[in-house]
Amino acid sequence: MKTGYSGLFIPGPTNIPEKVMQAMTLHLEDMRAPDFGGFTLGLLNDLKKVFKTKTGQPMIFPCSGTGGWESALTNTLNPGDKILCSAFGQFSHLWADMCKRLGFEVVRLEVEWGKGVPVDEYQRILSEDKDHTIKAVLACQNETATGVTSDIAGVRKALDAAGHPALLFVDGVSSVGSIDFRMDEWGVDVVVSGSQKGFMLPTGLGIICVSEKAFEAHKSSKYPRCFFSWEDMSNSFKTGFFPYTPATTLLRGLRASLDMIEEEGLENVFARHKHLATGVRKAVDAWGLKLCAQGPEWYSDTVSAIMVPEGHDATKVIARGYERYQTSFGTGLSKVAGKVFRIGHLGWLNEIMVLQAVATAEMAMKDSGIPIELGSGVAATQTHFMQSNYGS
Amino acid sequence: MKTGYSGLFIPGPTNIPEKVMQAMTLHLEDMRAPDFGGFTLGLLNDLKKVFKTKTGQPMIFPCSGTGGWESALTNTLNPGDKILCSAFGQFSHLWADMCKRLGFEVVRLEVEWGKGVPVDEYQRILSEDKDHTIKAVLACQNETATGVTSDIAGVRKALDAAGHPALLFVDGVSSVGSIDFRMDEWGVDVVVSGSQKGFMLPTGLGIICVSEKAFEAHKSSKYPRCFFSWEDMSNSFKTGFFPYTPATTLLRGLRASLDMIEEEGLENVFARHKHLATGVRKAVDAWGLKLCAQGPEWYSDTVSAIMVPEGHDATKVIARGYERYQTSFGTGLSKVAGKVFRIGHLGWLNEIMVLQAVATAEMAMKDSGIPIELGSGVAATQTHFMQSNYGS
Amino acid sequence: MKTGYSGLFIPGPTNIPEKVMQAMTLHLEDMRAPDFGGFTLGLLNDLKKVFKTKTGQPMIFPCSGTGGWESALTNTLNPGDKILCSAFGQFSHLWADMCKRLGFEVVRLEVEWGKGVPVDEYQRILSEDKDHTIKAVLACQNETATGVTSDIAGVRKALDAAGHPALLFVDGVSSVGSIDFRMDEWGVDVVVSGSQKGFMLPTGLGIICVSEKAFEAHKSSKYPRCFFSWEDMSNSFKTGFFPYTPATTLLRGLRASLDMIEEEGLENVFARHKHLATGVRKAVDAWGLKLCAQGPEWYSDTVSAIMVPEGHDATKVIARGYERYQTSFGTGLSKVAGKVFRIGHLGWLNEIMVLQAVATAEMAMKDSGIPIELGSGVAATQTHFMQSNYGS
Amino acid sequence: MKTGYSGLFIPGPTNIPEKVMQAMTLHLEDMRAPDFGGFTLGLLNDLKKVFKTKTGQPMIFPCSGTGGWESALTNTLNPGDKILCSAFGQFSHLWADMCKRLGFEVVRLEVEWGKGVPVDEYQRILSEDKDHTIKAVLACQNETATGVTSDIAGVRKALDAAGHPALLFVDGVSSVGSIDFRMDEWGVDVVVSGSQKGFMLPTGLGIICVSEKAFEAHKSSKYPRCFFSWEDMSNSFKTGFFPYTPATTLLRGLRASLDMIEEEGLENVFARHKHLATGVRKAVDAWGLKLCAQGPEWYSDTVSAIMVPEGHDATKVIARGYERYQTSFGTGLSKVAGKVFRIGHLGWLNEIMVLQAVATAEMAMKDSGIPIELGSGVAATQTHFMQSNYGS
Repeated sequence: MKTGYSGLFIPGPTNIPEKVMQAMTLHLEDMRAPDFGGFTLGLLNDLKKVFKTKTGQPMIFPCSGTGGWESALTNTLNPGDKILCSAFGQFSHLWADMCKRLGFEVVRLEVEWGKGVPVDEYQRILSEDKDHTIKAVLACQNETATGVTSDIAGVRKALDAAGHPALLFVDGVSSVGSIDFRMDEWGVDVVVSGSQKGFMLPTGLGIICVSEKAFEAHKSSKYPRCFFSWEDMSNSFKTGFFPYTPATTLLRGLRASLDMIEEEGLENVFARHKHLATGVRKAVDAWGLKLCAQGPEWYSDTVSAIMVPEGHDATKVIARGYERYQTSFGTGLSKVAGKVFRIGHLGWLNEIMVLQAVATAEMAMKDSGIPIELGSGVAATQTHFMQSNYGS
Repeated sequence: MKTGYSGLFIPGPTNIPEKVMQAMTLHLEDMRAPDFGGFTLGLLNDLKKVFKTKTGQPMIFPCSGTGGWESALTNTLNPGDKILCSAFGQFSHLWADMCKRLGFEVVRLEVEWGKGVPVDEYQRILSEDKDHTIKAVLACQNETATGVTSDIAGVRKALDAAGHPALLFVDGVSSVGSIDFRMDEWGVDVVVSGSQKGFMLPTGLGIICVSEKAFEAHKSSKYPRCFFSWEDMSNSFKTGFFPYTPATTLLRGLRASLDMIEEEGLENVFARHKHLATGVRKAVDAWGLKLCAQGPEWYSDTVSAIMVPEGHDATKVIARGYERYQTSFGTGLSKVAGKVFRIGHLGWLNEIMVLQAVATAEMAMKDSGIPIELGSGVAATQTHFMQSNYGS
Repeated sequence: MKTGYSGLFIPGPTNIPEKVMQAMTLHLEDMRAPDFGGFTLGLLNDLKKVFKTKTGQPMIFPCSGTGGWESALTNTLNPGDKILCSAFGQFSHLWADMCKRLGFEVVRLEVEWGKGVPVDEYQRILSEDKDHTIKAVLACQNETATGVTSDIAGVRKALDAAGHPALLFVDGVSSVGSIDFRMDEWGVDVVVSGSQKGFMLPTGLGIICVSEKAFEAHKSSKYPRCFFSWEDMSNSFKTGFFPYTPATTLLRGLRASLDMIEEEGLENVFARHKHLATGVRKAVDAWGLKLCAQGPEWYSDTVSAIMVPEGHDATKVIARGYERYQTSFGTGLSKVAGKVFRIGHLGWLNEIMVLQAVATAEMAMKDSGIPIELGSGVAATQTHFMQSNYGS
Repeated sequence: MKTGYSGLFIPGPTNIPEKVMQAMTLHLEDMRAPDFGGFTLGLLNDLKKVFKTKTGQPMIFPCSGTGGWESALTNTLNPGDKILCSAFGQFSHLWADMCKRLGFEVVRLEVEWGKGVPVDEYQRILSEDKDHTIKAVLACQNETATGVTSDIAGVRKALDAAGHPALLFVDGVSSVGSIDFRMDEWGVDVVVSGSQKGFMLPTGLGIICVSEKAFEAHKSSKYPRCFFSWEDMSNSFKTGFFPYTPATTLLRGLRASLDMIEEEGLENVFARHKHLATGVRKAVDAWGLKLCAQGPEWYSDTVSAIMVPEGHDATKVIARGYERYQTSFGTGLSKVAGKVFRIGHLGWLNEIMVLQAVATAEMAMKDSGIPIELGSGVAATQTHFMQSNYGS
């Protein structure tokens, strides 16, 4: 029998704040009530701040991030359109795979897992695409499977350098609200996020933001769509209503979540994530282990994929953490299965939660035969936390 | 300022049971935990009982009923396939419209609003379709906009009488779990439901059930799809996991909801809905008003669309109910806008809640100039409740 | 099996507001944290507004109203002191009885149930008590058992007219926060209230307010006491801490409750209670029944005790309401057992909840053989609600 | 601004289980409903199992543990009766002090803080009390202020050895439900407990259990009492109702809590507490620090009071924990103020929560200038957890 609170250190769903839980402890409501529209418009307005956009239009679908990906593609492109993308982890792979399954022509760059979007390659390919046959460029800002953050500003520069008009779609599922994202400054056309990561909510909302340019492309897109259709959603959203029944409970939770982000300050949220992520990385160093991310330029502030030494099985660490220590770590997916376990460090998190994760990881690793010194990672994390001027 | 509990008498989202609210007051969890699969399999098994199927396969998408509709179409058909459907209210219209938007050929029968699926017409058309060009037949079991229940068993008979192999898709969004639905007996191939009606949950789960025949059709369907893809979902479901992050909070709520349905007894749930609906209809009679449903054979046990007398505006009634009496009634949609207001009577409901709805409707109507006698509907409803042997 | 929300129409515990339920859905906390004291001080300050006092000192005990009564007596008096009180219902009786059990000398006036504090008798007795042997005068502002409100301002006048220095203690358990109470203006020395009535919280807080004069008397009181001791509480309260572990969950709920009272406006809260109570009384008139309260000057705005006709048993009505209609009415206590059933109409209540109570009472009475006309009370209540300018 | 979940490591209120929080997320209810009595009787029955009694009678007061102390004294003794007690910490002191304030004659043994009930002294005094003037003997099973557990079986042996008939009263506030307590076997006459410790609930219930012998003494007790009166409570409890409004929300929470204790198994609950406490003590050893408890025979499994080295101020550690690391440790009270900080390890707790406490304590101590090695305590705790066969 489980006792006490379980440790949830997967890279989403994240730990849910008490205020959000309270906000969602409520009765259902009339989604056509006259005052419901105003409530929604307030959410959309505050979402813009999180996406750092003035001209983008947020949309909220009752779905997961996967639905958001699909929405971006099917609302802007036409069947057979060419898409440039890169795969360097399970999620960037899946989005690229979706492009193929949905009938687009895919220029897919295979990148070593541990690195991110190959900006230079992108620039080369875009420069060579003189006829602008590439209609969209995909970039996964934070590859959740490997703990790698890519340079979205760099992708924009690549597009600009090539003078290429393709749309820029960004998977921000595990970055938005935790790692800096700048829709307008970076010229992003569609960014896809979800409720269960930086927004600290249960799964169930696919939150996207769409540029004016993307809406322009939308007009000439003839891809069949209905549930994910922007025309219905954006028409309804003029008055703050939804084309079909919205998940009002989650929307009330989103109100609380946006208020908390506002109260903490978005830049402070980013700083906190960096601070906590650094704490985890100090532990990894102390253990003598490596991250999957192949260098500081790729380090993610929301999730660390930790490589177990050759000859060891990360699956055991994860199983031990769950079964013996009531703690969930992220598993290694696909190519890195058995090679990494992941510590998610995003959302409603603080230093003492990170220390719990690190201490538990130590036991799970040691129990699994990985030769680390107990307390060594904890001490490194503690030292970082104490020496930083965070929170003072 | 609102005080006291608001009246929620729309035909979904419905009033949320305390037990469901409790079940969803919980922290987030690891959807890849080893024991999560077993939990899901338990849900799927119990969903079968609600759908009255032994061979059907339930699937749970993180979406609304609209997504369920789309899922049924895009997983079984091919672009350009012919679909037989009928429109007699806003929701049957929207599903038919979706067929068109998704690129299918639509044989759409326009039926007077207030009646339901034209079974004889269906039989005639199917009989004439010697080449079996019609691949699917759509039927909306409960048209939420008009309070009309259709004869799904009759549609099956029509198919059988015509010896037609088309798939039968049923919109059971506002019927499943409240009005009798028999997947196996009626030979339904896909039924679409949602969490916020008979399942008494917040919006956010599209719950469908798929026959073996539909899965067979799925194999030859080449319609592009990804988020709503059955192949991913059914593969994952073998072990009870999801192809993408599920809405765990709602799933825990669904566990509570299914337990409650089991405890009350599914047939008792149906009997309760009929009992409460009859109570509302007695009030409508006492007021001297008519339902939109044009005869007892069409009466819905989950929602009553009440016609205001000629020269009156139902919109006023609804606005008055909301603004002065803190109560939501369902609005008249599209063709019946201004002509009807709706009392939803499904989900977590009892006699005293119905009496509240009736008493409030009386005030809102009288305030809007409709000449009804105060207390008359209440007395008729009370009399029905007292004379029935329900609950004794 | 119960379905739908039960009706709770007892005179406390009352229906709990969603915001209060949310505020109490929280983890436990450190009651010695440095910022906890400030939180408590804020509560105390806002409680003063509810008690309408500037110089009184609120205290919050983790107990029920009964504990508050005891606290008033044992902190100000000495064993054997003489107390003037009157009994006209179960709760005024119990307080008088407590005085006796705790060893005080009790001058107890028996008053017909249905009337309240006999102000003239009080004045006569106080005038005759030339030696001021009476140390305290008790008055129950709202007798919950009979639905009778007494004239506390009148009691003060009686004391003043007699030039008598006795302390004035008021039972405000079912009045404070629902019916006007003016501590300073009426010269009340201790008022006793509880969390589960006008404060719309679960039971568990005995909330009292103490005048400077009462604190002065406290200094010379040698009655043994510990748990209910004011010296410990008032010392701790200087910094907002408690002498023993406080019920933090309820205190967080009280914060929400006080915020709601502030938002609605205390005078508006009183007006709403009068409005709703009048609605109930209109129904009683329409039924041809009488209240236990023997005239409008005694009518309570928080609870109506309704007399069933001679030869009928009110117990049956209450049992029927609970067993058949899932609704709780207040029972008749002691002398009025079987003669009255009570509708509580206080706390988080609105018009449509009152209509539900009235409609349900009609069925329960009719089922019990009481000859009332179904719908008659409802129509009278509706008419009152519609004709008033409340909420407009 | 606080982010993430705060650490609550005070010795009560404890961390509230999710199931208990869910059970208390509910509407208020009718405490006079016909089925309420049966619900209460079920609680009382299960409480007996926790107290390990067959003949004892549990009672539940809406108060804190302090009220339970008072209830024990005022219901069994007469003013001026002689009580034997001992003080070796803030809570044993307060109970002894209460005896004096309530007008009893107190034989109070001062014991060095860090030790517990002086069983031999008790036996000597009781033996010398040939006339049996001592009517009651007090023993604090777990002194929360110093983390000292006393030998209650030993106190019984002392009484028996002296052939003394005095009543035995035990303060089990921070032991019952966490550390073994055996009412019948140890011949305890009244044990006092509270909701916010081993019962894992919010503060608000004083839970006591009374022996037949104590009820016998009750009959001749003339101490004035009312709120805490056993006669009212035990009469009402025959049918499971309460003499005044009970805290129904907490009672529903208690139902959940008792179910959880039953599910885990009471002996397993004790074993878990010992296991976790040992984990904390291993850290203290590793830090080179001492507990306030002066030897293993005194070690408490629910709270550890840790002595900071001479020249250091424990207050700083606690303040640092709260302000910088969002964690509450227990403060040093009275004689040990500034000398100890306390880690509460009782209630809804597991290994990873203990590790969090230990890791945080390390930082708070180091920041406060106490020369401990970061990670050292964590490693010792980890080692203990990993080497034990707990949970396997």
